[in-house]
Amino acid sequence: MKHIHSAKNPQVKHWKKLLTKKERDKSGTFIVEGYHLVEEALKANKILELIVGDQVELPQKWNYGEVPVTTVTSEIIKELSDTEAPQGVFAICEQEKVLASNQVGKTYLLIDSVQDPGNLGTMIRTADAAGIDAVIVGNGSVDTYNQKVLRSAQGSHFHLPVLKGNLREWVEKFRSEDIPLYGTALENGHIYTEIEPTDRFALIVGNEGSGVSKELLEETNKNLYIPIFGKSESLNVAVATGILLYYLRG
Amino acid sequence: MKHIHSAKNPQVKHWKKLLTKKERDKSGTFIVEGYHLVEEALKANKILELIVGDQVELPQKWNYGEVPVTTVTSEIIKELSDTEAPQGVFAICEQEKVLASNQVGKTYLLIDSVQDPGNLGTMIRTADAAGIDAVIVGNGSVDTYNQKVLRSAQGSHFHLPVLKGNLREWVEKFRSEDIPLYGTALENGHIYTEIEPTDRFALIVGNEGSGVSKELLEETNKNLYIPIFGKSESLNVAVATGILLYYLRG
Repeated sequence: MKHIHSAKNPQVKHWKKLLTKKERDKSGTFIVEGYHLVEEALKANKILELIVGDQVELPQKWNYGEVPVTTVTSEIIKELSDTEAPQGVFAICEQEKVLASNQVGKTYLLIDSVQDPGNLGTMIRTADAAGIDAVIVGNGSVDTYNQKVLRSAQGSHFHLPVLKGNLREWVEKFRSEDIPLYGTALENGHIYTEIEPTDRFALIVGNEGSGVSKELLEETNKNLYIPIFGKSESLNVAVATGILLYYLRG
Repeated sequence: MKHIHSAKNPQVKHWKKLLTKKERDKSGTFIVEGYHLVEEALKANKILELIVGDQVELPQKWNYGEVPVTTVTSEIIKELSDTEAPQGVFAICEQEKVLASNQVGKTYLLIDSVQDPGNLGTMIRTADAAGIDAVIVGNGSVDTYNQKVLRSAQGSHFHLPVLKGNLREWVEKFRSEDIPLYGTALENGHIYTEIEPTDRFALIVGNEGSGVSKELLEETNKNLYIPIFGKSESLNVAVATGILLYYLRG
């Protein structure tokens, strides 16, 4: 077991930089923090490296087998942490790049330019709960591996494939595989309950203010909307995603 | 038009204290910030008093009639603001205490001990969108007039009655009026889709971690749950509220 005691160690500097999108993209990895997320990563066999405070005891039930463990000082824990009361446990994980051949699915959630990390994380968690096969996050969204996104998703990143990608390319794929593609629009669409629930679909939801981009809405089979019965202008995008996914999957 | 230039003015001190629950409860009022929320309050005729930065121009279309307006310095604006980039517009409004006789409804959302202000605000916004007649927030929840709750609700506080109250007393009312009362449970309940959509119901949703209190669940007609098809442990409470309200109202 390796021990690092200096916050100036280059390894520590690299881990700390994983709090930025730039370093995550460069390395193809990301960092998760806290018992719950690390445990979910462990269960899913997704950990490249464990980082543990030298004062921290890992749960007996954790079976981390061959995963390399580095212990660090509480000063380094504070450097790496994105929270006010760090639990002193981190994991470095590999970003998912493509669907594995056993992950080819029938139901997809596509996310176009969602900006709020809490919303994006909640949407990933909701897709997981609804049993969706994969989430595709378009390039204009907040980074999928942002610490707040990871926290809000509560481990769902390790439960289903969550890929970054070019949504236009995915649209081609759905068309070639005859998977019906539904956009979401505030107007000029169909009330969602007009659609029959189905076991194959891809749903696109979009930005908090402007919705799904016009270019994507022109590529869909149908565009759906959720009626507003009261006086609010709209629904929160994560709430709308939940209503639509649970309806569509039937 | 009154002008205040000293942040030590007792009026300013009182307004500032309205950022705390204690002062809000004592005065029976609350403060809202920013063009959007103030405009919604204005449209709903709920403003006791307008506070405007002396550098700020109010939109021409605002018709504030007899509402007293006080102008203040930008120093005072900063004192009162809960945001990083204050817009310099505030309104003092009266808390809603009871349902007016013309507000007696058929559909209710009851909220038991929800702690996160973003969740509570989103739930109020969702109830508004779903056309629910009133929201009752139990005493164990974060304060309904907390600034983050108000922001997340995006003005819905002014669209439908949002009352604080003792949920047990409301349960009695629903029983006497034959309004079916549905709790939400993680287990030992009915899948929500077993219930027929209906034009009269009261739904209770609960705390992010522990759900609706056991005492309340024993008082309901039925307790509902949303199935988890994937591997997440649960849904976010605001997302769950959206799925259930849109399903139940049909």
